[in-house]
Amino acid sequence: MVITVKSEAQTELIDMTSKIQEAVLSAGISSGLCMVYVPHTTAAVTINESADPSVRSDIMMVLNKIIPWKADYRHLEGNSPAHIKSTLVGASELIAVENGKLVLGTWQGIFFCEFDGPRTRKVQLSVVSC
Amino acid sequence: MVITVKSEAQTELIDMTSKIQEAVLSAGISSGLCMVYVPHTTAAVTINESADPSVRSDIMMVLNKIIPWKADYRHLEGNSPAHIKSTLVGASELIAVENGKLVLGTWQGIFFCEFDGPRTRKVQLSVVSC
Amino acid sequence: MVITVKSEAQTELIDMTSKIQEAVLSAGISSGLCMVYVPHTTAAVTINESADPSVRSDIMMVLNKIIPWKADYRHLEGNSPAHIKSTLVGASELIAVENGKLVLGTWQGIFFCEFDGPRTRKVQLSVVSC
Repeated sequence: MVITVKSEAQTELIDMTSKIQEAVLSAGISSGLCMVYVPHTTAAVTINESADPSVRSDIMMVLNKIIPWKADYRHLEGNSPAHIKSTLVGASELIAVENGKLVLGTWQGIFFCEFDGPRTRKVQLSVVSC
Repeated sequence: MVITVKSEAQTELIDMTSKIQEAVLSAGISSGLCMVYVPHTTAAVTINESADPSVRSDIMMVLNKIIPWKADYRHLEGNSPAHIKSTLVGASELIAVENGKLVLGTWQGIFFCEFDGPRTRKVQLSVVSC
Repeated sequence: MVITVKSEAQTELIDMTSKIQEAVLSAGISSGLCMVYVPHTTAAVTINESADPSVRSDIMMVLNKIIPWKADYRHLEGNSPAHIKSTLVGASELIAVENGKLVLGTWQGIFFCEFDGPRTRKVQLSVVSC
C-alpha cells in the first residue's frame, strides 16, 4: 500500500495518522504490525503528539537549529541538512494493529517529516500478522 | 503484553531488558521479532550498553545539552525538549527472539528513556513469528 | 543470517546494500520484512542516499560536530561519543522484500555506521513474511 503526502514548505511535519488508519482498514487487516516506510532520503517519519500543532513546529525548529544550514558540505545539491535529519529521525516506524485499529498512545500521531520540500512524496505501508 | 516502568527523575535511562525477557518467556514465544513500543510522546526506547551505567548517564547528559531546555517554544506545557528527544531517539525497537531468548549483542540492553519524569509509564510488547 | 563488515576509520558509513540483497536472495525469501540489526553499542544502521558518497561524509561530519568528542564523560573507555551516536541513529532498520528484492527508494542504500572503528563488525538479518 502506498499513500501520497504533499508538503507545502521546505521543512514541515504532516499528520498522516488518519490516512494510514484508512489504508489499514481498507486492506482488511485485523491484527499485526504496520510498517510506515519513507522511500526518500531527505524525509523521514516520526511518532509524536498530535493534539497540539505547536509540538511539531517546536520539533522542526530545534532540528533546524541543531543541523546547520551552512557548513563545509561536500554534497553539491545543497540539501545535506535534509539528508542528515533523515538519518537522525529515521526512515520507518512500526505500529501494532488490533482489530483493524492502529494501537497508538493517547497523544500519539504519525507524522511525515519533510526536510527538503515542498514536494509530493510517497509513503509505503506493509503489514505483518502477529 | 504491557510492562510498567516507574521513572524517578526528570530525565533517566532505565534498563528493562530482564523485564522484557521475562515477558517474552512467559508468553511462550519461541522465535520471531519482538517490538518494544513506547506509547508516550515524551519518552522513547533505545538499545545501548548495559554493563557500565556511566554510558546511560553520558547519553542523557549529551541529549540534555543538544536539545535546549529554554528556547522560543510555542508548546505551552513546557515539555517541548522531551517531545524533541522522543523523536530523535524513537518510539520503538525491534529485537530478534530465538528459542525464547532475546538476541542481543554481548553489551546490549534495552532502555526506557524518560524525558519528562518522574512518572509511571507503560511499554507495549508485540511479537511476530519468523 | 549474519554478514560481516570491516571498517577502516574511526567514524565511517559503509554501504552494505548489495551484501544484504545477496543474503536475502540466497535465503530464498520471496516477500516479507527484513530487519537489519547491529548487535554493537558503538555502531548503528541507517538508510540514506547511496548515489553520491559525499552525502555519507556530510552526515558523519555533522554527527561528529553535534556529539562532542570531549565532555565530562563518566564512561572510562573514552568512547561515549560513539555510544551516543548509536542511540541517535539506531540499532536497526526495516525494509520490505518483494519477489526476493529489497524495496528501497530510488536513491536509498543501507549503511553500516561505524562510530568507534576500525573494527570487524557483525550485522544480523531476520526476515518475517507478510
